[in-house]
Amino acid sequence: MTKPLSVAVAGLGTVGAGVLTLLRDNAATITARAGRPIAVTAVSARDRTRDRGVSIAGLRWYDDPVALAHDPNVDVVVEAIGGSEGQGADLVRAALKAGKPVVTANKALLAVHGAELAALAESKGVALAYEAAVAGGIPAIKALREGLAANDISRVLGILNGTCNYILTQMRERGIEFAQALSEAQKLGYAEADPAFDVDGIDAAHKLAILAALAFGRPVDFDAVHVEGIRAISALDIKLAEELGYRIKLLGIARRTDAGIETRMHPCMVPVAHPIARVDGVFNAVVAEGDFVGRIVLEGRGAGAGPTASAICADLIDVARGRTTPVWGVASPDLSHAPNVPMSKRVGAYYLRLMVVDRPGVIADVTAALRDHHISLESMLQRGRAPGEVVPVVVTTHDCEEAQMRAAIARIEALEAVLETPAMIRIEAL
Amino acid sequence: MTKPLSVAVAGLGTVGAGVLTLLRDNAATITARAGRPIAVTAVSARDRTRDRGVSIAGLRWYDDPVALAHDPNVDVVVEAIGGSEGQGADLVRAALKAGKPVVTANKALLAVHGAELAALAESKGVALAYEAAVAGGIPAIKALREGLAANDISRVLGILNGTCNYILTQMRERGIEFAQALSEAQKLGYAEADPAFDVDGIDAAHKLAILAALAFGRPVDFDAVHVEGIRAISALDIKLAEELGYRIKLLGIARRTDAGIETRMHPCMVPVAHPIARVDGVFNAVVAEGDFVGRIVLEGRGAGAGPTASAICADLIDVARGRTTPVWGVASPDLSHAPNVPMSKRVGAYYLRLMVVDRPGVIADVTAALRDHHISLESMLQRGRAPGEVVPVVVTTHDCEEAQMRAAIARIEALEAVLETPAMIRIEAL
Repeated sequence: MTKPLSVAVAGLGTVGAGVLTLLRDNAATITARAGRPIAVTAVSARDRTRDRGVSIAGLRWYDDPVALAHDPNVDVVVEAIGGSEGQGADLVRAALKAGKPVVTANKALLAVHGAELAALAESKGVALAYEAAVAGGIPAIKALREGLAANDISRVLGILNGTCNYILTQMRERGIEFAQALSEAQKLGYAEADPAFDVDGIDAAHKLAILAALAFGRPVDFDAVHVEGIRAISALDIKLAEELGYRIKLLGIARRTDAGIETRMHPCMVPVAHPIARVDGVFNAVVAEGDFVGRIVLEGRGAGAGPTASAICADLIDVARGRTTPVWGVASPDLSHAPNVPMSKRVGAYYLRLMVVDRPGVIADVTAALRDHHISLESMLQRGRAPGEVVPVVVTTHDCEEAQMRAAIARIEALEAVLETPAMIRIEAL
Repeated sequence: MTKPLSVAVAGLGTVGAGVLTLLRDNAATITARAGRPIAVTAVSARDRTRDRGVSIAGLRWYDDPVALAHDPNVDVVVEAIGGSEGQGADLVRAALKAGKPVVTANKALLAVHGAELAALAESKGVALAYEAAVAGGIPAIKALREGLAANDISRVLGILNGTCNYILTQMRERGIEFAQALSEAQKLGYAEADPAFDVDGIDAAHKLAILAALAFGRPVDFDAVHVEGIRAISALDIKLAEELGYRIKLLGIARRTDAGIETRMHPCMVPVAHPIARVDGVFNAVVAEGDFVGRIVLEGRGAGAGPTASAICADLIDVARGRTTPVWGVASPDLSHAPNVPMSKRVGAYYLRLMVVDRPGVIADVTAALRDHHISLESMLQRGRAPGEVVPVVVTTHDCEEAQMRAAIARIEALEAVLETPAMIRIEAL
């Protein structure tokens, strides 16, 4: 029997405790697949006495997680603290500097500091593995970085936040509004007390930045991601989308165009027939489109102790087997520097829903505004008549540029008969 | 720049020519991802002069593919000849014996001789990689062998033959019979002139044997797979399935039960709401269920030059990077020897469709036969009345054992009022 791989785990919340549980429960399977036992020998967390449902008896304890990096009996460090700054980040840097491979679920850290950390890991010749950072248990990182490595990728997109997908699914299935769906998700533990990180799209945008870096072999660039969340989505828009043959999903999309790389996170209308339209509840999905492989869809649980631990332990098995890959699939000096395409250049179709006073001439004013910005109408729908009252009017357009659409919306919003800021949702050709 | 990886390709049909095209078209991407160029330097095929749409000028030519194994300037051999016996098999053995890694799309070879070849590859310390052998471009092998490696897998199943899935999709969408759908698929090039290998389930069963070996870490055992194809599926059964909330798919299923490992390839009724029910046309899908990760669904193109070349070149990039894994995820001596569970022990629900003479007492005889074999009815459906004429009667059952069902069917078939062999389709709880 080869020497066991000695693992330190920093952070014993849901994720860290899940790793301990998995390595204990599936020890025989993991030993066979890794070619050697994988054993946690040291841990660090805030509270030594808390009951986590898994024993830490006999493990070396450190109050300071960064100290794990300097334990000479630790072969690899698992960082399950989180956050782009602070102790998790400090530990990852210290461990890499000490020449220890790092396995992490920390998407914020990878999205914000991934380029620097990759260079550091590569200079030390050690792995920085992060399968758990994106789409939980779905082996999306491995698929993009290795499985589809021979392809030029044209687009990668995904449902990357289970909280948002759960809320949107509840809104659609039950016809409820965002506030109610959020409140219920909080009670069920699917959303945090402070939901901003999830519902404003930030968590998902971190993951998209990582996928984009891998797909296009370029330095990770979180600042380039256009980010919108789902707070503005209404039950009415979900219902109207359904009538038009679409579902509303919060999608992260990274796309190669002639101008460079688009990375954007926002609600989209997607055709009901596309596999991603049917990914409901807390499930995540990643779609990659390659020039030789065509379209690949990966679906599974995007969060939770089990799926996240599954991904972390897969990375540990890679470390145990000595399977290494540059952090971003391509060595840092060889990464490409394709420019970022700003959101204003996004080309596609749009859905607009206006609340207008039902009187003659309003539609003419709206269509004139679109015409003046060279936007071609695809359909117009006013459901029912209610002279003098407020009614929803739905417009869908042919492809135009985001900047044109923004200008047209500004003019439409200024019309006296238009009573609210128009709801705008991008229709994504998939 | 590191030394290029020198590749020999044996077989220049769709797959082999696709590999040459991909390595040429995406050379820059592949060099970056592999850390070195990957260059084909030698080839072998039956006809040197045939136009394959890709140049072989400047490559060393061998009439005998086995000679590639002994070319000292070849680092790795791609076997794209196929077949469990013959030149492809001879080449793979010769290359491994010569200490050269082998990349192959040959599912028949892996399914029939995979245990022996794994032991040979491991004794020589070289890779035997076969991502292209199962589900084309979907990185299903890598996902099971590495991505989900920390899980105890309870079940793996898939739509593994695009020809069958295309035929079943056409039958459902257009209400046509098998013979017409097959004939059209042949005209479109989706089915071979001799379609037996596909429509009788053999090709898919080869792939299932491979998935089962990986999922459960045991020696590949094609002979243990129960194989049925789709010739007996009728448009009527597809229509009735739809009414019951099911779709009919040819599924390969490998499952761990208390008694051991089931491996079976046969048409199934699957709930319309399950993601695999919506995988239509030539697409393939693989579903894996792990104890920590939950259910993972992978979907994509299962055949064709592009997807197959994508998988082969991913394996070549692994070889170039020195990423190695035991052939079956676990070293041959550590493989488990869980027993095979015979088909007669399958437990599940069943759909029976009988053609009976519509007269009093027939249903009583049928239900008595089921009762006597301890089979509990879930539903019974006789659409319309036609006294004295032949009508279809559909029965669905609660879970029972295959052996009970077979015995009940034998008795039902012997009833005078039952005019054809009953159509039996297993309902799969997914």
